[in-house]
Amino acid sequence: MHLKRLLIAFIALPLAYFYITKLPAGYFLFLLIAVSVAAQYEFYSMYKVKALLKYTGIVFGVFIILAFSLQPSLLSLKPFDLFAVLFIIMASIRLFLKRSPESSLLDIATTVTAVVYIPLLLGYQIYLRNQGYEWIIFLYGCVWASDSLAYYAGKGLGRKKLYEEISPNKTVAGAVGSIAGGAAGAVILKTVFIASMALPLSKGIILGIIIGAVTIIGDLVESMFKRDAGVKDSSNIFPGHGGLLDKLDGALFAGPVLYWVSIFLGLIQ
Amino acid sequence: MHLKRLLIAFIALPLAYFYITKLPAGYFLFLLIAVSVAAQYEFYSMYKVKALLKYTGIVFGVFIILAFSLQPSLLSLKPFDLFAVLFIIMASIRLFLKRSPESSLLDIATTVTAVVYIPLLLGYQIYLRNQGYEWIIFLYGCVWASDSLAYYAGKGLGRKKLYEEISPNKTVAGAVGSIAGGAAGAVILKTVFIASMALPLSKGIILGIIIGAVTIIGDLVESMFKRDAGVKDSSNIFPGHGGLLDKLDGALFAGPVLYWVSIFLGLIQ
Repeated sequence: MHLKRLLIAFIALPLAYFYITKLPAGYFLFLLIAVSVAAQYEFYSMYKVKALLKYTGIVFGVFIILAFSLQPSLLSLKPFDLFAVLFIIMASIRLFLKRSPESSLLDIATTVTAVVYIPLLLGYQIYLRNQGYEWIIFLYGCVWASDSLAYYAGKGLGRKKLYEEISPNKTVAGAVGSIAGGAAGAVILKTVFIASMALPLSKGIILGIIIGAVTIIGDLVESMFKRDAGVKDSSNIFPGHGGLLDKLDGALFAGPVLYWVSIFLGLIQ
Repeated sequence: MHLKRLLIAFIALPLAYFYITKLPAGYFLFLLIAVSVAAQYEFYSMYKVKALLKYTGIVFGVFIILAFSLQPSLLSLKPFDLFAVLFIIMASIRLFLKRSPESSLLDIATTVTAVVYIPLLLGYQIYLRNQGYEWIIFLYGCVWASDSLAYYAGKGLGRKKLYEEISPNKTVAGAVGSIAGGAAGAVILKTVFIASMALPLSKGIILGIIIGAVTIIGDLVESMFKRDAGVKDSSNIFPGHGGLLDKLDGALFAGPVLYWVSIFLGLIQ
């Protein structure tokens, strides 16, 4: 399993790297839509959501991502229209799909909330990509460095559990490692891979630390959902790596936060 | 009880009418915020949502309504920011509030979805009010005429149940009555109460029919939620009338639909 795990990493990572850095922004939009569809599908399957609600949620997810790309006006919809329509349609579908009121709120709320959790949070990566591909490399590079250092720090050092009920393997040392990993990732990225990026090293380290911290929360939230749904991996599309959501969890939260903090720090507009 | 019911109607209705028609639009915003807070409170209480999640949802609801009023820019937030922040905060609160993953999605999704169901759908009444107070009178007048005719048609005529599992008292005749009531309401409103409104009678009747139809759906959806939560009335703030959500249910769905159809018909912009 460990070999398979390494093989996938050695094929998928460089492939993704070249896809993101060498191809125009439109290709990233396409990739993000594909990721959003697959991750939503995984999430709905985890929670055993009925097919009609599942596919309606996925279609709305595509519209949400397109709305990030086609700002400020998508077919002259007002900003909240997508969510108003989403709720009204989901509630109406559920009303006529099962002739029982039981757990109707859960059925509707799962799909409405999944659209926020996955495509809407992913959509911020469109804003980041619009600032240059370096921002995407920076985001995923820092998240990956956080995850990796958290894993090794958690294994090597520390016994004190971080949040045993949700993630029995995570330790406080791992959380510190995650933050340190974010900072270290930022330094390495900025000095080696994306040196041309208009980002002072000091602010890059701040961003790395924040990404490291937010990644832990994103990670724990996804673990919480998995345990709530009673599954171990979100799916098994990457043998040895678990599902797509397992890979995305940190970046889902870190993407919007990176975008907001970068605006706050005057790095982007 | 019937006397109390009538008394409340004879005091509350004219009061609301003069409040909406005689006072500037800012007062309507204030009323809508108060209604949104109270209705969300009711909804969360119905579903026994924990205090911290409940109040966070209510505060976000206020921001959502303000966002409708302060379009296009609220503190230079991007349109989706409110929902991204809402989800990240709700998920983080839930993560640390209960140390158990069980029903975490339901806890988070209930609050996120309630913000769409109540303040976001209510917010469209700000857009309507911006077109003139007549639009608000038209909306609530048609909903009220639909509800009333549905009630009497359902009682007098027809035996065939509309959706017994959710609303045992509703009949197909009642649904037809609701649509006819919307049309009749539109005619009466347009010829008596708001004759000055820039709305041709023919288009008014179309809008009335649509409001009558949508009101049924909004009504059934709220009944579904009440049965799901295991309560009879959403609360008992209006003795004999039930709760605020019981009064709002039709208008929650009819508001955005009236707004969208009126744009489609070229009546407003």
